[in-house]
Amino acid sequence: MVNKRKIINDPVFGFMTIPNEQVYAVLQHPYVQRLARIRQLGLSNFVYPGAMHTRFSHSLGAMHLMQEGIQALRNKGVEISDSEATAAQVAILLHDIGHGPFSHVLEHTLVEGVTHEEISLLMMEQINEDLASQEDRGLWDHRPLDEAIAIFQDRYPRHFLHQLISSQLDVDRMDYLCRDSFFTGVQEGRVASERLLKMLNVVNDRLVVEVKGIYSVEKFLVARRLMYWQVYLHKTSVAAEQLLIAVLARAKELAMSGKEIFCSPALHYFLYQRVQGKDFYIGSEAMRQYALLDDSDVLSAVKAWMSCDDRILSLLSEAFTNRRLYRGRLLTEPLTEEDKKSLNRHYAATFGVKEEEAHYFYSEHVSTSNTYSEKDDSIDILYNDGTVRDIASASEILDLQSLTRKPRKIYLFTFRE
Amino acid sequence: MVNKRKIINDPVFGFMTIPNEQVYAVLQHPYVQRLARIRQLGLSNFVYPGAMHTRFSHSLGAMHLMQEGIQALRNKGVEISDSEATAAQVAILLHDIGHGPFSHVLEHTLVEGVTHEEISLLMMEQINEDLASQEDRGLWDHRPLDEAIAIFQDRYPRHFLHQLISSQLDVDRMDYLCRDSFFTGVQEGRVASERLLKMLNVVNDRLVVEVKGIYSVEKFLVARRLMYWQVYLHKTSVAAEQLLIAVLARAKELAMSGKEIFCSPALHYFLYQRVQGKDFYIGSEAMRQYALLDDSDVLSAVKAWMSCDDRILSLLSEAFTNRRLYRGRLLTEPLTEEDKKSLNRHYAATFGVKEEEAHYFYSEHVSTSNTYSEKDDSIDILYNDGTVRDIASASEILDLQSLTRKPRKIYLFTFRE
Amino acid sequence: MVNKRKIINDPVFGFMTIPNEQVYAVLQHPYVQRLARIRQLGLSNFVYPGAMHTRFSHSLGAMHLMQEGIQALRNKGVEISDSEATAAQVAILLHDIGHGPFSHVLEHTLVEGVTHEEISLLMMEQINEDLASQEDRGLWDHRPLDEAIAIFQDRYPRHFLHQLISSQLDVDRMDYLCRDSFFTGVQEGRVASERLLKMLNVVNDRLVVEVKGIYSVEKFLVARRLMYWQVYLHKTSVAAEQLLIAVLARAKELAMSGKEIFCSPALHYFLYQRVQGKDFYIGSEAMRQYALLDDSDVLSAVKAWMSCDDRILSLLSEAFTNRRLYRGRLLTEPLTEEDKKSLNRHYAATFGVKEEEAHYFYSEHVSTSNTYSEKDDSIDILYNDGTVRDIASASEILDLQSLTRKPRKIYLFTFRE
Amino acid sequence: MVNKRKIINDPVFGFMTIPNEQVYAVLQHPYVQRLARIRQLGLSNFVYPGAMHTRFSHSLGAMHLMQEGIQALRNKGVEISDSEATAAQVAILLHDIGHGPFSHVLEHTLVEGVTHEEISLLMMEQINEDLASQEDRGLWDHRPLDEAIAIFQDRYPRHFLHQLISSQLDVDRMDYLCRDSFFTGVQEGRVASERLLKMLNVVNDRLVVEVKGIYSVEKFLVARRLMYWQVYLHKTSVAAEQLLIAVLARAKELAMSGKEIFCSPALHYFLYQRVQGKDFYIGSEAMRQYALLDDSDVLSAVKAWMSCDDRILSLLSEAFTNRRLYRGRLLTEPLTEEDKKSLNRHYAATFGVKEEEAHYFYSEHVSTSNTYSEKDDSIDILYNDGTVRDIASASEILDLQSLTRKPRKIYLFTFRE
Repeated sequence: MVNKRKIINDPVFGFMTIPNEQVYAVLQHPYVQRLARIRQLGLSNFVYPGAMHTRFSHSLGAMHLMQEGIQALRNKGVEISDSEATAAQVAILLHDIGHGPFSHVLEHTLVEGVTHEEISLLMMEQINEDLASQEDRGLWDHRPLDEAIAIFQDRYPRHFLHQLISSQLDVDRMDYLCRDSFFTGVQEGRVASERLLKMLNVVNDRLVVEVKGIYSVEKFLVARRLMYWQVYLHKTSVAAEQLLIAVLARAKELAMSGKEIFCSPALHYFLYQRVQGKDFYIGSEAMRQYALLDDSDVLSAVKAWMSCDDRILSLLSEAFTNRRLYRGRLLTEPLTEEDKKSLNRHYAATFGVKEEEAHYFYSEHVSTSNTYSEKDDSIDILYNDGTVRDIASASEILDLQSLTRKPRKIYLFTFRE
Repeated sequence: MVNKRKIINDPVFGFMTIPNEQVYAVLQHPYVQRLARIRQLGLSNFVYPGAMHTRFSHSLGAMHLMQEGIQALRNKGVEISDSEATAAQVAILLHDIGHGPFSHVLEHTLVEGVTHEEISLLMMEQINEDLASQEDRGLWDHRPLDEAIAIFQDRYPRHFLHQLISSQLDVDRMDYLCRDSFFTGVQEGRVASERLLKMLNVVNDRLVVEVKGIYSVEKFLVARRLMYWQVYLHKTSVAAEQLLIAVLARAKELAMSGKEIFCSPALHYFLYQRVQGKDFYIGSEAMRQYALLDDSDVLSAVKAWMSCDDRILSLLSEAFTNRRLYRGRLLTEPLTEEDKKSLNRHYAATFGVKEEEAHYFYSEHVSTSNTYSEKDDSIDILYNDGTVRDIASASEILDLQSLTRKPRKIYLFTFRE
Repeated sequence: MVNKRKIINDPVFGFMTIPNEQVYAVLQHPYVQRLARIRQLGLSNFVYPGAMHTRFSHSLGAMHLMQEGIQALRNKGVEISDSEATAAQVAILLHDIGHGPFSHVLEHTLVEGVTHEEISLLMMEQINEDLASQEDRGLWDHRPLDEAIAIFQDRYPRHFLHQLISSQLDVDRMDYLCRDSFFTGVQEGRVASERLLKMLNVVNDRLVVEVKGIYSVEKFLVARRLMYWQVYLHKTSVAAEQLLIAVLARAKELAMSGKEIFCSPALHYFLYQRVQGKDFYIGSEAMRQYALLDDSDVLSAVKAWMSCDDRILSLLSEAFTNRRLYRGRLLTEPLTEEDKKSLNRHYAATFGVKEEEAHYFYSEHVSTSNTYSEKDDSIDILYNDGTVRDIASASEILDLQSLTRKPRKIYLFTFRE
Repeated sequence: MVNKRKIINDPVFGFMTIPNEQVYAVLQHPYVQRLARIRQLGLSNFVYPGAMHTRFSHSLGAMHLMQEGIQALRNKGVEISDSEATAAQVAILLHDIGHGPFSHVLEHTLVEGVTHEEISLLMMEQINEDLASQEDRGLWDHRPLDEAIAIFQDRYPRHFLHQLISSQLDVDRMDYLCRDSFFTGVQEGRVASERLLKMLNVVNDRLVVEVKGIYSVEKFLVARRLMYWQVYLHKTSVAAEQLLIAVLARAKELAMSGKEIFCSPALHYFLYQRVQGKDFYIGSEAMRQYALLDDSDVLSAVKAWMSCDDRILSLLSEAFTNRRLYRGRLLTEPLTEEDKKSLNRHYAATFGVKEEEAHYFYSEHVSTSNTYSEKDDSIDILYNDGTVRDIASASEILDLQSLTRKPRKIYLFTFRE
C-alpha cells in the first residue's frame, strides 16, 4: 500500500498527495467532509464571483504545504519523526474543523459564548474517539489524534510544530493567501509559499526564517495586509455580512417569539432556542446539530423567507437573495444616540415598521486589522552569524509601530430604498 | 456615465468589463443572480475540490469573450452595430439561464418533458417583459431583449452572431473549457481563447477561422475531448450524479405516496406533484418555483433526509452527504434482465428491502460524447486563397470518422456495503 | 553535504535541485557552461522576442523532469538504483552537448559530414576523461560517465532508461515543449509534463503510459505538432535561417579564396579550411575549436561584415543584422532549372553581381515534420487488463496514417530589394 | 491599413499590438533592432539561467503598458490626442536606446564621462533625422520624434505624460518588474501592472493613484525592493560584473600600451583609444561605433582572450567564460590601505604578477539602493475627497525614513585560487 498514495488535483498547487492511510482515514470523517459544504470566504463571492472555494480545499492545501515545510526542515537536518509528521498534517487538516457556515455571521446570531476555535477542539476530540472505536486496521500506535491535538494546543514538547500550524508565518496563512488570491483573482495577494518554506529553519525549538528570505517575509506581510483590505474587509462583502446578520437576527427573534418559519432541522435547533457555550461538549445535541449545519441550510432558508408574511424578514431576505445589499459609507465618527434615533425614525416611516424594529434597516460596523501582532509568536529572522531578530526590528522598511497598529474603519450600512 | 463602467475581477481572464447600462440591468435580474447559486460543474467537486465555480461566473466569462470576439471581428472590417454587440452579449449572458440545480439529475427526476434550453427561452422572455415594464430610463430603443432572443434562436438575419453563441467553436465552449480547466486544476483543458478569437473572420455570413489558426482548432478539439473524459464524464462524478438521482427518485416516490419529508417550498413543489413540459409557460407557478430552486435546496434537503425513517432514503442520503459514493466499474455488455434480477436479490437481502426497491442500490449508466458533430454547424477554415473547408476535412491529423463517432462507456454503479 | 543541495530558480518549473556532487561536477565542465551561450531556438527570437532561452536551461529542465520521472517510477515499485538515477540525469544533462551555435545553419555551412549527435558522444567521452583525471574526491565508483554514456547509446541493459532520454515521449520533448512555449508565449504548446510523468510505468523493460493518460498523450502529440508549425518551422524563422546560411556560405567562399575577413579565432578555424567528420575525434583541434564556438562569434562577425568590401557579404550581413529578412512565399511546385535561371538573371541585374553569384539572394527550402514516427520507439499505452497498444492504434481520434505522414511545405525566400 | 495592425507574442503580457505605422517605422530603425542583441539583465543569467531577455522585449513591453495606461486615463475622461499617444509610445520605446552591452561594466571601463541617458537622447535625435530624411509616406505631421523627445525630456507642456515614462511609478518600472521576475523565476517581483494602470488618474497635470490602489502601491514598492536585493544586486551577479570589469580594464590597459589583442572592429574603437563624453555627438564616429556594439562583441572577445599570452587577461577571461566567478563576502568596514597592500602582496605571490597589477584579482564594491526617493517625482495618492498625499506619508505601514534611506552593502570579491 505504500506506493498507492491518493493524489488530489488542486488548481492552486497542482498535484497534492494524501501521505498515508491514517491521514486518509481522517479525511473520510463526516466532520471533514462537511468542510466541503462551507465556503472559505463566506460572502466574498458577492464581490469576487470566483471565490466559491471551500474550507475543505483550504485544509487540503495547508496540509500540502505542511508536507513541503516538513520536507524542507528535514533537508536542513531538523529531525522530525514520521509520527510527528503525520500528527502535524492531521492537526493542520483539522485546524478549521469548528467553523460553521458564514462563521462571523453565525457567531453574532445563532451561537453565543463559544468560538469556532473551541468547537474545533471538541470536534477533534470527537474524531479521535470515532477513529479509536472503529480502529481495526492497526493504523495507529495509540489513540489516533492525541499527538495532533497536542500540537494543535501547543502542549507538544516541540513548539516549532505548533508554529507551523499557528503563528504569524504558518502554513494556514500561506495557503489562504495563495488560495484566496487565486480564486478571487486578486493576484497581488499571492505569496511565495514554496520559497518561504525553503527558507525556514529551527533554532532553539522555534521556527526562524533565514536572512536571505527577509524580503519575502516583508512581501508576505504586505500581501496579507492587501488581502485584508481588498478582500476580507471589502466594503461590499461586509455589507452582505451585515445584511445576513440582520436576516438571521430577525429570524431568530421571530422564532423565539413562537412564529413558525421555514428552516432545515439543524437550523431549527439554533433558531428556536438559545444555544450557548455550555451546550457544547462531546456527544451533546448542540454538537450533533452544529455538525449538520452548512451554507446550504442558511441560503435555502433565506430564500424561502422572501415570501414570509413578516415584512421585515421578507424585505431583508429578498434584498440578500437578489443582491440588493446594504449601501455602505465611511463615517469619521461613531453614530451618536441622536443619529440612531433619527435613523430609526426614518426607516420606521419608510418601511412602515415600528421605531424599535427600524434598526434592521441599517448597521454600524467597525472593520479593523493589524498587519503584525507583537502578542503572537514573532516572525524571527536568522542571520548568518547565528543571531535571531524579530522581523519588526529586522526589516529596514516596515515600520514596527505601524505594523502592529490596528487601523479602524467605521461604516454605516443602510438598506436600499 | 459612459466612463464609469463596472469592472469585475475574474480569476480566469483578469478584469472583465460590464459594457453598458443595458447589460448591467440584465445582470441585476433575479434570474441572473440565481445562477450565482448553481454550480457550473454540479458534483465534479467530489473529484476536483476546486470546482465550485458557478454558472454565473461562466456566463460573465462567456460575455467577456463575446466582447473580445466582436472587437476582433470589427478590427477585420466586419461591421457590427452597437445594438448588435449589446444583443449578442446579452444573449450569451443568458444562454444558460434555464439551468436548474444539478441539471442532469433534475431532468431525470423532478421535471419531465422539458429541457433547460426550452426553459432558457421562457426565462429570457420573462426578463424581456420585466425590463420593459420597469423601463423608465430610456435605456432601450424597443422591447429590450428582442434582438438578443432573435440571435439566440438563430432568427436574426446575421447568422454568424448566433454562431458566436452556439456552434462548435463558440464563446460558450471557449469559456467553459478555460474555466473548468482552471478550477479543476486540469490545466491541459485550457484552450487559447484569445488566439482563437483573433483568428476569426466572417465569410458569407458564417464564422471562419483563418488557416494559420488550424493547429489551434485541432488543439481546441483535443482539449475538449480530454475534458469530457477526464472531467465531465469522470467515473466518480457520474457515480455521485447517479447516487443523487437515486436519492431524489426515492424522495419523489415517497412524496407522491403522501409521506411527509423535509424540503424547501420550491423543492416541495417539484416533489409533491408531477411537473411536466406543459406546466412551463410565462407567468406559470412552475416557472416561478423553478426560478427559486437552486443547489442549496437540494443539498440541505438530502442532508436532512439522513435521519428520515425510510431506510432507503436515509441510507442513500447518508452515503451522498458523507461521500461514500457508488463504486463504478466498466461493463463490456449491458446488463441482462437476469443480471438485474440477481442484483435485486442481492441488494434486497443485503439492506433488508423489497426486491422491487433494490434498484436504488445500483445503477447502469452509459457515458458518451463525440468530439465533433457533423450535424451542428461545422468549424470552417478559411484558406489564403479564399476557399473554405470544414476542419474535419482540413485537418491532416484528425480522423473525421473518429471525431464524429460517439464512443460509449457502460458503467455499473453499486452502493458500498 | 547530503543536505546542502544546490537549488536553481527556473521560470518554467520553479525550483530545480542539483541532486548530488557528481551531477554538480558535470555541470561545472566548460562544455556544459558553453551551452549557456547557445540559444535553444536559434533565430526564433526574430519572430518571438522572448525566445532567448539557452540550451543550458533546456538541459537543466530536462534533468529536473528526469528526477520527477524517476521518482514517479520508484513510487510505482520500479527499482532504480541511485547510481542509475545519477547516470540517467547526467545522460539527459548532456544529451544536447554537441550542438553548435545555430545548429542547422552550421551543419549546412561550416561543418560537413558530422552530426551534432556524433559530436555529443565525443564530448561526453571527453568530459568522462576530464572528470576521471581530476577525480580526487572519491565521488565516483568507476569511470564517471560510463553508465550515463551507455544509457545515452542504448547499450545499457535497462532499455526504459534510454527511452526516458530519447523516445517519442521522453523528458527531452517534455521540457522543450514546455520551455519553448513558455518563452515564445505560444501557451498552447505547453504539455502536462507533471501529469504525463505520473502516468508512466515500465512493462517488459519498456516505458508505458497508463490508459487514463491517453488523452494527455493525444494532447502531447497535438501540442508538438502545433509547436512545429507555429514556432520551429515558422516562415520568418526559416527565412532568418536561410539568410544566415547565405551569409556564412558567402563568408566561407571568400575565406577559402584567401580573402581576409573579420572573425574570432574559433570561427576562423571553420571558415578558412574544410572541416569534415574525420577531423572530429577526442583531443583533435577541430573538437577544441568547436567547443569554443558559440552564438556570439557568429553574431559579432556578421555585424562586422556589414562593412566588408564584398558587396554580397555586406548586403546579406546588413539585412540579417537589421532584420530585413528574406521574404518567403509558398510554392506549389519545386523551382525548375528555368525558374532558377530567371531568378539568377533578375538578382544579378538588381544587385550588380555575376549570375553565378545571384543565388545568394534567394533560397528554395522545404519544411517538413511528422507528428509521430513509427520507426522510433512507439508510445505504448498500458490498459487496465495488462495489454499494451501503440498510441497510434489506441487513440480513437488520431489518424495513424496522418500522424506518420510528413507534410512538406516548399518555400521560395527572396532578398528584399 | 487601419485594421492590419502587427501583433507580437509576448510571454509576459500575451498579445501586444504595434499601434500604427509611425511606431512601426521607429521599431525598424537599426538602433532599435540593436536592443534585441543586448540583454536586459546583463550577467544575471549566471544566477538565473532564464534571464536572457533583451532590452528590446522590455521596450516593447513598456510600450504595451503605455497603451494600456493611456486607455485607462482616457476612460476616466483625461483627454490625450492621438498624436500625444503615439509620441508617448515612441518615447517609452526609445527610453533605453542608449544602453550599451553590460551597461554598468561599460561605463566603468570603455566609455568615460557620458551616461547612457545622454546617449539615449543623442540616438533619439539621430533617429528623428533619419526618419525625417526618408519620410516619403506622409506618416508624420512634422519632424517625426519632436513631440516624443519633448515628453522624454519633460519639456512637453503636459507633465503627466513624462511621468508615465519616468517617475517612481512609471511603465518602465512596471514592465521591468513584471518582466525580470518572469524570466528569472522570482515570481514575487511581479507587480499588478494592469490593476495599477486602472487606478491612475491625472490631477493638476500630475499622475495620481486612486486611494483604493494604495495597497497595490505598497506592494509595488516592496516588490521593487525585493527585486533589487534578490536579483539586480545579487552577490553572484555583482561578482560576475566585477570580474568582467577587471577583464575589460586589463584588456584596455594592454590595448592602450599597444599590445594586439583580438576584438571586433566596434570593440577595437573603444579599447584602443580613450573615448570621452565630448566624442559623442550626432554623426560622430564614437556614436557610429557605439551603435554597432552589443553583447556578442564582448562575449566573443573575452572567450578569445582565454588564450592571450598575457597571464592576467587569460586567467580572468578563462574564469569569466567558464563561470568560476569571484567569491564575495560582506565587509563591515571598507578596506584600509593596509588591507589592500596585504591583498596585493598575496595575489602577486599567488599568481606571479607584480604587486601593482594584483588588484585585478580582487575588487571592493558597494551595493546600494533605496526603495523610494524623495527627490524624484513622488507617488501621489488621490483621496475620495479630492486631496492628494505622497505615498510616503499616506502609507500606514511603510516607514518614510526607511524607504528613502539607501542601505549599503560592502563586498570584497576575490579571485578563486
